[in-house]
Amino acid sequence: MSLPVPVLSEGVDPAWLPEEAFRALGGRRILIRGSGPLVETVHAEAAEACARFGGALVSKDPELVLESTGDDESEAFTLGRRDGRTTVTASGGRGLLYGFFHVVRLGAAAFEGERQLREHRPALAVRMLDHWDNVAVHPVMGQVERGYAGGSLFWADGRARGDLERVRAYGRLLAACGINAVAVNNVNVHAAEARLLTDRIGEVADIAGALRPYGIRTHLSVTFAAPMVLGGRETADPLDDGVREWWAGATARVYEAIPDFGGYVVKADSEGQPGPFAYGRSHADGANMLAAALRPYGGTVHWRAFVYDHRQDWRDRATDRARAAYDHFVPLDGEFAANAVLQVKHGPMDFQVREPVSPLISAMSHTALAVELQATQEYTGQQRHVCWLGPMWSEVLRFGARDGLPFEELVAVSNAGDDPFWTGHPLAQANLYTFGRLAWRPDADPGGILDEWIGLTFPGAPGRLADGLRSVLDGSWRTYEKYTAPLGVGFMVQPGHHYGPSVDGYEYSPWGTYHFADRDGVGVDRSRATGTGYAGQYAKPWAEVYESPESCPDELLLFFHHVPYGHVLKSGRTVIQHIYDTHFEGVEEVERARKVWASLADVVAPERHARVAERYEEQLRSAREWRDQINSYFFRKSGVPDGRGRTIY
Amino acid sequence: MSLPVPVLSEGVDPAWLPEEAFRALGGRRILIRGSGPLVETVHAEAAEACARFGGALVSKDPELVLESTGDDESEAFTLGRRDGRTTVTASGGRGLLYGFFHVVRLGAAAFEGERQLREHRPALAVRMLDHWDNVAVHPVMGQVERGYAGGSLFWADGRARGDLERVRAYGRLLAACGINAVAVNNVNVHAAEARLLTDRIGEVADIAGALRPYGIRTHLSVTFAAPMVLGGRETADPLDDGVREWWAGATARVYEAIPDFGGYVVKADSEGQPGPFAYGRSHADGANMLAAALRPYGGTVHWRAFVYDHRQDWRDRATDRARAAYDHFVPLDGEFAANAVLQVKHGPMDFQVREPVSPLISAMSHTALAVELQATQEYTGQQRHVCWLGPMWSEVLRFGARDGLPFEELVAVSNAGDDPFWTGHPLAQANLYTFGRLAWRPDADPGGILDEWIGLTFPGAPGRLADGLRSVLDGSWRTYEKYTAPLGVGFMVQPGHHYGPSVDGYEYSPWGTYHFADRDGVGVDRSRATGTGYAGQYAKPWAEVYESPESCPDELLLFFHHVPYGHVLKSGRTVIQHIYDTHFEGVEEVERARKVWASLADVVAPERHARVAERYEEQLRSAREWRDQINSYFFRKSGVPDGRGRTIY
Repeated sequence: MSLPVPVLSEGVDPAWLPEEAFRALGGRRILIRGSGPLVETVHAEAAEACARFGGALVSKDPELVLESTGDDESEAFTLGRRDGRTTVTASGGRGLLYGFFHVVRLGAAAFEGERQLREHRPALAVRMLDHWDNVAVHPVMGQVERGYAGGSLFWADGRARGDLERVRAYGRLLAACGINAVAVNNVNVHAAEARLLTDRIGEVADIAGALRPYGIRTHLSVTFAAPMVLGGRETADPLDDGVREWWAGATARVYEAIPDFGGYVVKADSEGQPGPFAYGRSHADGANMLAAALRPYGGTVHWRAFVYDHRQDWRDRATDRARAAYDHFVPLDGEFAANAVLQVKHGPMDFQVREPVSPLISAMSHTALAVELQATQEYTGQQRHVCWLGPMWSEVLRFGARDGLPFEELVAVSNAGDDPFWTGHPLAQANLYTFGRLAWRPDADPGGILDEWIGLTFPGAPGRLADGLRSVLDGSWRTYEKYTAPLGVGFMVQPGHHYGPSVDGYEYSPWGTYHFADRDGVGVDRSRATGTGYAGQYAKPWAEVYESPESCPDELLLFFHHVPYGHVLKSGRTVIQHIYDTHFEGVEEVERARKVWASLADVVAPERHARVAERYEEQLRSAREWRDQINSYFFRKSGVPDGRGRTIY
Repeated sequence: MSLPVPVLSEGVDPAWLPEEAFRALGGRRILIRGSGPLVETVHAEAAEACARFGGALVSKDPELVLESTGDDESEAFTLGRRDGRTTVTASGGRGLLYGFFHVVRLGAAAFEGERQLREHRPALAVRMLDHWDNVAVHPVMGQVERGYAGGSLFWADGRARGDLERVRAYGRLLAACGINAVAVNNVNVHAAEARLLTDRIGEVADIAGALRPYGIRTHLSVTFAAPMVLGGRETADPLDDGVREWWAGATARVYEAIPDFGGYVVKADSEGQPGPFAYGRSHADGANMLAAALRPYGGTVHWRAFVYDHRQDWRDRATDRARAAYDHFVPLDGEFAANAVLQVKHGPMDFQVREPVSPLISAMSHTALAVELQATQEYTGQQRHVCWLGPMWSEVLRFGARDGLPFEELVAVSNAGDDPFWTGHPLAQANLYTFGRLAWRPDADPGGILDEWIGLTFPGAPGRLADGLRSVLDGSWRTYEKYTAPLGVGFMVQPGHHYGPSVDGYEYSPWGTYHFADRDGVGVDRSRATGTGYAGQYAKPWAEVYESPESCPDELLLFFHHVPYGHVLKSGRTVIQHIYDTHFEGVEEVERARKVWASLADVVAPERHARVAERYEEQLRSAREWRDQINSYFFRKSGVPDGRGRTIY
């Protein structure tokens, strides 16, 4: 009855579920109680592990009990150990599945000593990956928009992939780190993708079927213009009865095909996508229309808050893209339906290596919110550079969370594709894993998660391998920040593809992304007193902290203020010397990491070692390019020589 | 026997051959003597004109005699008028064809008063257009690389166009301005295009057949790697016997298909194209191999001198792209076969709005040279801006020509496509016409050519239309220069597509295109004394003139020197004030031209007027963007305010 555990094709990396990760559990006498499809999944997993490592599924004298006491949807489980018996109890198959993978993570420790009964429960009910995968290859963006890991796991050349074994394996990896929802197509919905909603829903249903045994619900990105594009209506006005009927009918047919369908993801009135503005309606009107269509079935609409003017005039200093999401959505707080989730990028701009946390997140107390992170490394090295984002995400998730989390869900843009290592750069797997674990427990220590990932992915690794991995990953986000855009200024990237430096690349563009560097200083004045007023969008104490260059944290100084190159940072260095120093340091740190990796050649599988080593070459080349372009640009502009006399071109 | 005069499809503009242009001639009694295919063409033209305007082909008492006395290939003709009879005499059909179009150009004046017998003879034997047309649509470059006039006249979606009537009409337009050779495909030869040389030569033969009646020989761009790509050889080494045999065989088959085939055009070892360097051979070796294959049939190889390092390191100040063509080719002077023509871009860089004339042109006295111009406006407004290049080309052609022209041929990259106006911007037709006429007579006054074009294209135009056209075209090149890159600095364009400003767009790139602007000054030191030494590639007096900022002409100052913003030009203005002034002036000039055009609405056909008016809107928008970006960039860098207090952002 239960599906077998998915089998990876030759050459595909098992990521954090290598066979060895199941050794401790697979050697036990295991008793499984309960029924239902996800219990069946646990059964198949346990049976497979026992077959490999000499354990057995038993009906008495177990060393491990996995028990589902009912069939509800709860994801919680209780784990304890007493008298040589480890027990996992849940009130349904979902909880049991997470409990099972928790035991896998614990490894041998799950079967040692005593362990007090403790309930484990995810802090966030929806832990989701958005795939920006195109069905048809896009002429500019390709098969996966901002994808750096080969093709799509779901689609190839205009069709769903026939073989779903890899999708099943993907679902298994996601379940093992706690992810429970996937949107299977790009938020920019082109012609072929639009039709997934209607006549091509069968393809989505097949994917949903492959992900379901691992507790993952499938979501679909849809175009707001669907009633026109697909339904032949003359309008997509969310208050038009015909439009609402069309969505109700379309949604009913979706649920016929996928009874546990998660819902819609919508990018509306954003970067050219259609939306309610065309009809003089608000985004609440738009989102609520879709929420109404989904409500009878328990579905949710994820409505992205990434709305701004992408045809701005660079000469216009009054408009500030950073303000846009807050200005658009705060007036609508309280107007969104309960099953309309506003999906907010973690920063006010667009996934830069350093941004403040979006003030919108703390300002929508009457609206369900999802915070959106970007696992795919669009602006953070595109999986050619090592950049482990755990520390950044942790900072974001802890911001303003003293009185409870100000959001309900966590979403990340996936970094996975059909690459043999799943993520292009083998070490970028750590980002995917970390995201899942932080979504389960946003206050978790990212360093602990990294250790967990190392332990699972490299089971039985000698100490120097674990140490080496930790040393090249742990500080890699700050290293990347050092050799790229300084002090929160952002967007000094090549236009279009966003890889590599171009200090003025977005400076005279319509995208609202400026640094205003001149011969005297650099940065954007976003204070209330003299700037765009963005700092005033924060609650206290942050509004005050960000308002003044004296109190603003160094790492965000140029995001909030335009300061002279001679401005002295809290670190004691001037801005210009900070720019030079960090850029030299960043490259040196990459050089060191590359050496550490080279030293691990004897303890890492050859293909994996080679793949990472090759990417370090590119990372180092690119880091040097960043260093030299940024330093040259600011030296030419400021005229201030490096205090340490290093080479600036 | 003779083909009829080509008929244009509905809506296609007749350019400089409207019916009215034939009125003066078409009303006469015309006697035609001689035989051969091109005499037949003249016969068909004259008959058509007479049928329309009431004249007649007669055997006695003619008012116009068109006589070919033989059947040689000479393009010269003799024109005179005496006792009420105009005579055109040539020693073959080619000369007679050019004589015929000369009479068309003269209009009524051809039949007035007396006219001394005078021989007209082109200064250059080959007057050629290179089409950068792709057979298959290129994923980045499209159907026509750097094409701004719709699709290709020759190719569509991977195949030769079936209907060749438009090609015949194109040939007729070219003959009427003096062009006698066309290369039908892009110098970047991709997979589909490579095969035109072999199994697809029939498609080229069809085009050649359509162009032949108007005296135009067809040339083909080929890949140097053809023996490998098409012939399955393991090498393309030009000294390898098998390779030479392969080319000899391939060329023999080309001439079987096209007996008057012109020859090959080759871009080798340039921007990624294959070439002889891979085999340790010189460009003379490469060119001479192809020349040897072509020699038995009277064909020519055009070997492009556009060879430079396009993977330069911007940090490396010693390498200078401007030096490259001279450094590569001067050592080879005298080594090229007689039918190997070295095709040299007019400037040392790449068709910028202002460059010095390439020193290579005067340095190859033992090598046949073609100077290459660019009619397609890649860097000069892409046929969205009015930029009549006659004055620039005239400057180029007069440079160093005191003791005779230092080159034998003139080539331009065509600006024509399947657009109804041929050139996208209707006024860009003037560039194509001017090129042809300058190729015939390089010392002609470009203003006179412009008047000629106006007279033909707008026959019987009221004076204010002719004045208006002259005023918007005559100074348009200098206007474009004013609002774009100042003082010869070049390349401040958006990377890739090259439209619109990006001051640093190529500053940190591998393309060898830098301006080195810093807070103190701008420009490239190419002097012998302190710079790259490029100035020393010129003969006297230019080596001295360019060597010093004092003697260097203002318009080339930043090409040759790095100077402070406060440097005082010969004009009396500082460099920085010159930048501001010219950018404001340039935009004002566009505003005035736009108004002039608007005032002509009642005397220009509506479609043409609307097309130009619409492009003026874009030109003005773009010119303002140029003005503001350039001014802001240099203000932010220099800190020097505009002396007249105008708005700089």
